[in-house]
Parts: sequence; structure tokens; C-alpha cells
Amino acid sequence: MNAYVFGYGPAGKERLIVIDLGVTFPDMDGTPGVDLIMADLAWLEQNADRIEAIFITHAHEDHIGALSHLWPKLRKKVYARKFTARIGALKLEEAGLPGDIITVVEPRPKVVEAGPFKVQFVPLSHSIPESSALVIDTPAGRIVHSGDFKLDGNPVVGEPFDPVLWHEIAREGDGVKILTCDSTNVFSPHPGRSEATLAEPLSKFIAEQKGMVVATTFASNVARLKTLAEAGRAAGRSVCLLGRAMKKMVTAAEETGVLLGMPGTIPVEAAVEVPRENLLLIVTGSQGERRAATAQLSRGRYLGLEMKAGDTFLFSSRVIPGNERGVIRIINNFSEMGVDVVDDHDGLYHVSGHANRPDLEAVHDLLRPKMLIPMHGEHRHLREHAKIGIAKGIPSAVAVNGTMLDLTGDVPQVAEYVEAGRTYLDGSVLIGALDGVVRDRMRMALNGLVLITVIIDEEDEPLGDAWVELMGLPETGRSNASLAARIEDELAEFLDRVTGKIIASDDRMDEALRRIARQVTMEEVGKKPEVVIVLSRLMAE
Amino acid sequence: MNAYVFGYGPAGKERLIVIDLGVTFPDMDGTPGVDLIMADLAWLEQNADRIEAIFITHAHEDHIGALSHLWPKLRKKVYARKFTARIGALKLEEAGLPGDIITVVEPRPKVVEAGPFKVQFVPLSHSIPESSALVIDTPAGRIVHSGDFKLDGNPVVGEPFDPVLWHEIAREGDGVKILTCDSTNVFSPHPGRSEATLAEPLSKFIAEQKGMVVATTFASNVARLKTLAEAGRAAGRSVCLLGRAMKKMVTAAEETGVLLGMPGTIPVEAAVEVPRENLLLIVTGSQGERRAATAQLSRGRYLGLEMKAGDTFLFSSRVIPGNERGVIRIINNFSEMGVDVVDDHDGLYHVSGHANRPDLEAVHDLLRPKMLIPMHGEHRHLREHAKIGIAKGIPSAVAVNGTMLDLTGDVPQVAEYVEAGRTYLDGSVLIGALDGVVRDRMRMALNGLVLITVIIDEEDEPLGDAWVELMGLPETGRSNASLAARIEDELAEFLDRVTGKIIASDDRMDEALRRIARQVTMEEVGKKPEVVIVLSRLMAE
Repeated sequence: MNAYVFGYGPAGKERLIVIDLGVTFPDMDGTPGVDLIMADLAWLEQNADRIEAIFITHAHEDHIGALSHLWPKLRKKVYARKFTARIGALKLEEAGLPGDIITVVEPRPKVVEAGPFKVQFVPLSHSIPESSALVIDTPAGRIVHSGDFKLDGNPVVGEPFDPVLWHEIAREGDGVKILTCDSTNVFSPHPGRSEATLAEPLSKFIAEQKGMVVATTFASNVARLKTLAEAGRAAGRSVCLLGRAMKKMVTAAEETGVLLGMPGTIPVEAAVEVPRENLLLIVTGSQGERRAATAQLSRGRYLGLEMKAGDTFLFSSRVIPGNERGVIRIINNFSEMGVDVVDDHDGLYHVSGHANRPDLEAVHDLLRPKMLIPMHGEHRHLREHAKIGIAKGIPSAVAVNGTMLDLTGDVPQVAEYVEAGRTYLDGSVLIGALDGVVRDRMRMALNGLVLITVIIDEEDEPLGDAWVELMGLPETGRSNASLAARIEDELAEFLDRVTGKIIASDDRMDEALRRIARQVTMEEVGKKPEVVIVLSRLMAE
Repeated sequence: MNAYVFGYGPAGKERLIVIDLGVTFPDMDGTPGVDLIMADLAWLEQNADRIEAIFITHAHEDHIGALSHLWPKLRKKVYARKFTARIGALKLEEAGLPGDIITVVEPRPKVVEAGPFKVQFVPLSHSIPESSALVIDTPAGRIVHSGDFKLDGNPVVGEPFDPVLWHEIAREGDGVKILTCDSTNVFSPHPGRSEATLAEPLSKFIAEQKGMVVATTFASNVARLKTLAEAGRAAGRSVCLLGRAMKKMVTAAEETGVLLGMPGTIPVEAAVEVPRENLLLIVTGSQGERRAATAQLSRGRYLGLEMKAGDTFLFSSRVIPGNERGVIRIINNFSEMGVDVVDDHDGLYHVSGHANRPDLEAVHDLLRPKMLIPMHGEHRHLREHAKIGIAKGIPSAVAVNGTMLDLTGDVPQVAEYVEAGRTYLDGSVLIGALDGVVRDRMRMALNGLVLITVIIDEEDEPLGDAWVELMGLPETGRSNASLAARIEDELAEFLDRVTGKIIASDDRMDEALRRIARQVTMEEVGKKPEVVIVLSRLMAE
């Protein structure tokens, strides 16, 4: 859910650039029913007249996913490289926005001028084509904003990491003042491995299988898709890509010229006719997403295809922490079908797209920044990365969401904390995380709901009895009578004896009815439910 | 959520014994608001007259946790060893049941006769004292039901694994016909390590820390508690146990004589007075449970104690798959406090309580069963374990929940599938997983709720307008008008033109009102809500 802002100028009047507008994904634990989570841009909206431009480092959802939702709040020029821009344009068009909002930028030496900022896109290897660091020159010095990266000299698709180029960037002018740097893999102690190391083990693995082989990886990992497809073809298998996101990525990569030599694939209509031992499916859903192809196949027939005993399912991916439950459910489903499931196998069939700890240290040494600001990661990752910087004598600071740092001196100083919450895409609407909407949904899920309707007539007398409906509560409890009827009885007793003074007050009626409903429910079923009360007052005509 | 049944006798009239009555834990993904999940015993209830007895192998929640909830449905004699029986009695007493339902049994050579079954409790090492296999002799042959176990020659607390004893059991009479065997760690390729190997690294680690040290592990791992406490004392620290479950376990273990030589601990009231560098807290909540001591400490002051920068938190445990989110949240909270978090460190500070793959193979070789029925584990574990058996020439079968196997022949044969669902403890009530109660709660959490009240007068005319309340839905949508008002407007329009024929029918009114509410909500906010309709019909007096 990335959204970084750099500013330059007199305090409170800094000119601003925004880097990345990403999303993160909801879960039942904290955000049931939410579609996407993104940064709350209230502060940027208030200061929109100060924004010079928006830069997108690469086309992963956590960097570009919020563009179509949040751009209408900012309406500034967007810069990205061609593949990233293509993916962005598809998103904007889906949302009914013009795709040409995004200006395609060539990499360094091309410079984008945005107010006091001179910005270059510099290629870095990652698990998606064209991931770029931004080299940002300001009157106060040079910033290198790493984006997501790894040090891969042979990333199969896209540009290799080029140490000579980075050496040059580090030595120009006064060198690098600030490094804002990916921290995702700071806890991985060994140097990262190249995407190219996977070709041989994957080819060997697929060649050895007897039945249908289905492999999943991240849809945007175009290099992996190519490696897998080549392994499949080498084993004499027809290759079929399954899943909208994957096809979109491959098409965009081919159309923008970043993916060359991708083996031919067949459509699903043809795949169903191919003998299973001659078929390789490459499918979406490596994180267990319920609607993606992997989950669908684990539940049975999908688009005419079905896995069977003797088939093999390969996770050429790792589980992002927090997604374990969904993935485990899928593995057990496959186990019930008699399908053998193979995972990344200690890295034989998957490598990460992020720089590990020794790689990060190599980058520190190469760029020799005056200050290090860790980014991308949870607090524990940022803290660990800052510790490494400090141990090397590079002043470092952990900037939690909303922190505004003054980076003009010798050490990072907190200048201000800006209100920086979360915005939810809920259906088609953006709502604030603190609006209470999702909180109410979680409360209903945890506690169940009692709904009470009472009609009060023109003379402030209850008309008939209270009416109770339950949602998400057991029908009967301790007394073995209907819970709804038990609450209605208690409410009837209350309405029999309630005074005119209380009945005339909506608030006091609400409080009294709610208390009774909660008390009876607690006694009967041991839960304190949410209560909604509808008090209908008939008016004298 | 274990509950195993063995039967012997003519088909349909077998006499039965039940082994273990355990629980599993709910989550927001599938069981929001549920307190505990246990097996649905409907089949056993229907056949209660055939049950001879209930045996509990050990006191872990997934083996004993449902005893107090489900015993009233069966009301049969319960057998367990003394520590297990003590923990069980505490649970029964909390539930208002007599603790003496449980009969304490000495281990082999003591034999419990239960109808056609002769049952011996045989000590095996695990991560709780007194975990026992059951050796069950029937006229059709000997069953070894492993319970949970590891092969630990020096488990610190409790009985070591005794290969001589097991050799004897394997050689008596006709040997072992059936092995029902723990499969939890079947995917762990290396031999398991002894609990005793942790003493030195833990002592060294705690001795090296400068600030307060807080360590968490499973409350029932009494051996680990002792090792940690000894390490703390050796480092000159006062030791304080925090968390009800942990104190309960230690007390029960000391009172039943299974825990000897536990170092003295201090109460929390004394701990707050001890300088932090002289303090070791051993706390509950290694799985991130929200209300346990670990989570509480990660959120701030707890019982007068507070962690600070320079303190250390140790997970002497591993995260059970599925619990990652809660644990990661806690680690980030500690990171924000400046607390260093150390986890099991590739096994230096934690060992598992289950037999790994080579250990399982050693048990197969030692017991030489005629058949192997894997148990304890997800489907993928059972399948892998069965594959190992089959590869060795031991007929094996995966028995999913509800499977009744005929084990009298040479290979396991499916005799029947019994309806075997889940029962939820929801507040104080047991409900069926398929009752729809939790489904409704999840729907409200995902979709939000629209509540419609309409009053129909004595002449079948709507009295006033429809009244709409929302729960868990955005207040405004596409049109920027109040969503509730938008729905009310559409309902008013409908009520204006509705015919007497429709208005007279509850079903048709319900359908029409629901359709309008869902349609407007979809248009406005892009969600299809749950809808509750209350139609109040005034009766002519």
C-alpha cells in the first residue's frame, strides 16, 4: 500500500512529488467485505495545488493498484515507463478514466523535470519487468528511491542489475544524500539468487511428471511464466495460461516489447482436448485467492479442466505471510483428489524478487548514501534495516506511516506527523477505515444481531407487541424456548408497564429495549448481540 | 479436534470405545464469533448405549478440550492418567459437572477392561506430561493408537520414550495388527531433537540479555517452562509466570507429582518491583491469541508490567500454520516499542513435540503393524504418511472424518461413511456448523445489512412510508444522497403503486422489497446486501 511523498521548498510550501499509489488486500480478520485497501490521501488532497507530479516505479498492485481509485482526488500528471504505463492505462480505462493520463518515460539518461525535482527512472531487476529506482535530484541533494528490487545479473526478462551504472550514479556531483530502500527481505541472511537459476530445475521437474502439470506463480512474474512455458515445451507439453491477470500481463509485456520469445500457448478450449500427460497449465492464484484458477481447480472442474490422481500441482511461488490458511486449504483439497503438490522446495522452484540482507548491504556500500530511510516492509523490517544502517555509520530512521522527515541536515529529523489512515474500496465506494462501516460489520459477525420493531400509536401507547428478528444467533438457548420469543416476552412485559414519560423519548426507549434484548440474549445463549431498534410512531392524521 | 472410535462385534451392534474429545479453534475466516469447534457427535449419541467408555490420551486441548461440552451427550465412564485426569477434572468442574467422572488409570501393565476391549495406557514422550499411546487388545487383534508423540529419550519432564518396552509390546501374542499413528510432522525430513537440547542455548541466550526478558511457549509444555525458569534463575533473574493457563498447568503437574524441581517463581505483584534486568517473565500467547499475556504486553502495560526499548521477547515456540497474522501483528507492535524479538532460531530455542518422518519410520519398523492408519494431521499429512506405509508394504488407508474402516481383514476396507460434521460452542450454546447461524453472520460481515420496516394497516394499505436502517454499509454512494433515503424513496414509489393482491401476500411483499433494496444498494455502493424485512400488519380491533 505504498504512497511516498517528497517535498522541497520553504516549510509548509514545499513543492511535492508522489511516488506510487498502491493497494493492499483485505482479510476477514479486520476488513471483511472490503475490496481493496489504500492510503488515505486527505493530506495530499488538501495540498493538491502543491503536487508537481506522480511517479509509478513498477506495475505491482502494491505500487500501482490505487491509481485509478485515487487519481481523481489529485488529477496530476503521472509518469511511468512503458510496460508500467500500459498496465496503468488498462486500470484507468476499466475505471472509465482516460488512459493517456500517464506519460511514458524512457529510462536514464532521460530526465523528467517536476518543479524543483529532476527525476530519472533507473532500471533495477525485480519480479516484474521494468521495475525502476528513481534518482531524484533536488537543490538539497540527490535521492535514490529504490522501489522494489533485487540484484539479478540475469533476470530472464527485463534489465539486469548494472553495478557500473549505479557506481556512476553514486559518484556524480555530491553523490547520494538519501537512499530510501526496499526492506522486504532484510531478514533473509543469504545473498539472493538469480531468476535464471530456476530454468534447469523447473525443466527437469516438469519433464519427470507423468500426468497433467499445473503450475502457479505471481501473474506479474513474466520471467517465471516464460521459464515455466519453456520447460513445458521442452517436455513436449502444450502450454495454456489460465487466469485473466496472467494473460493481461503477458499481453502487455509482449506489446510493449519487454517480453520476447515467449513460447506459443494454447487457449483453454484447445487445452481440454489435449491428453493430460501432454499438458502444462500455468495458472493464477498462488496466494490461495478464492476466485483465482488455483482455488477453482482445487474445488473441482474449472473451464472444462479437472485435476486427477497422478497429476501434479507446483507452487513456483512462496506464501506471503498471512495467506497461509487459504493456501493450506487448497493443498488439502488437492490431496483429497490424489494430486501431488510440490512447493518451492527450499528455493529450487522459486526465487524472491527482493534483495536479501547481504544484497542490501552491497547496495549501501555501492551508493554510499549520507542517510538511509528503510521502506517497504512491516515495522520489524524497517527497524532491522535501520539498525544495519546505523551499525555502518549511516544515519537512519524508521518512518512509520504519516511521518514527515526533514532530510536536509546530516541526520533524519521528524518534522511533523501527518494524519495518514487507510481508505477502503467497499463495493464501488471509497470509505474511511475509521468511518465505522466495517467495524459494524465485524461486530455483527462476532456478536450476531437482534432487530426490534415497536410501533407507538398516536396516543403514545405501544400498538401491539414488539417484534423481534434474529440474524446470526442461535434459535434457542438455555431455556429451550425460542430466543426471539423470549426477548419478545420480556419486551412485552416492559411495554405493559412503561410510563408515558419514557415512551415519549426515543433515546430512553432505545436504551431500555436494547438493554432487555442484550440481557435476555446473554442469559439464553451467552452472547451480547448488536441490537437495531426501529421505533415507528404513528402520527395523528 | 480429535474424536476416534473403535468398535468390535457384529455389524451394526459393535461395542464402542471413544478416544479423545478435542476442540479446534475458530477464526474470522470461517467461524467469526464462535468460541470453540468440536466434532458433531450425533452418530455417537444415537449409539450411546453401545459405548463402553471414553479414553483421553493426554491433556492438550485438541484431545481433551471438548470433554466438558460433549460428555453430557454421552455420559460414559472416562479413563485417563493422573495429570490428564486432573486437567480434565478442572474443566468439568468449571462447567458445573462432577470432576470424578474421570477414573485415574496407572500405565501398563494396568489394563482397563471395557467390553471386548482391554486397554493399556503406555507412556510416550510429547510436549505435555503423560502423553500416552493406547494399546488396545480385541478378539480381532492388537491396536496401537499412538496419540501424539515424539521419540525423546530425555524429555526433561515426564517419561522418556522406551524402545525396549515398545519392542515387547510389538512381540507379545500375534504382534500389532493396527497402528493408528500421529502424522503431524510427516513432512519434517530430519530426526526430531530432544527437549533436553534446549537447556544450554536457552541459558546462554537469557544470560546474554541486558533488559527484561519475556519468553512465551505453549502453556502445557511444562518441561519447557522448567527449562526456561532454570535458565532465568541461573542468570540471576526472578521468574514470574503470567497467564492463567500456564499457572493451571504447573500447579496440576506439581500436585500430581509429574513436575519435580520447578524453580520458585514470584507473583506479578512482586515482579513489578524487580529491576527489569533481573526479571524473566514466562507468558502465555505464543500463537498470538488476542487476550493472552503476549498480545497484552505487545499493546502496552499489562498487570503493571510494560516492555521497553532494550528488552527482549523470545518465542520459544513455532507458529502453528494459520496463526501467522496474529503473531506478526505482535512482533510489529514490539518492534515499535524498540523491543528485540527472537524466534525459535532454526530450532535453537524450540523443538517440536511430534515425531518427524524418520522417527515415524522407526516406529513402523519397531512395531511392525499389519496395517497403518495415519491420524492427527490435515489430509495432506495423512496421505503422505499412508504413502510411506504403502511403500514399505504396510497396507494403509486415509480415513477422512466420518470414515468407518473394517480392520478385521488384511487391508483396511471402508465399511461406511458416517455423517460427521462440526459442532460450535457459540457463547454458551452448542450449534451445528450447518445451522446457518454463522453463515448469516459471515454474510452480514461481507455484505452489510439493510433493514426495512413497513406497516400495513387494517385495510391492507401501507401506513406511512417504509423505514430503512443500514448496518455496515456506506452512508452515501454514487448519487451522493443518503443510501437509506435512496432506498426509502424507491420503496415509497413501489408502495404507491403496489396492488392489493401483492400487498396481501407476505412472500410477495418480501420478495419485492428485498429486490428493490438490493438493486438500489448495488447501484449506489456496488454491494448486494443482506436484507431483513419486518412487515407489521395492524389488525382491525
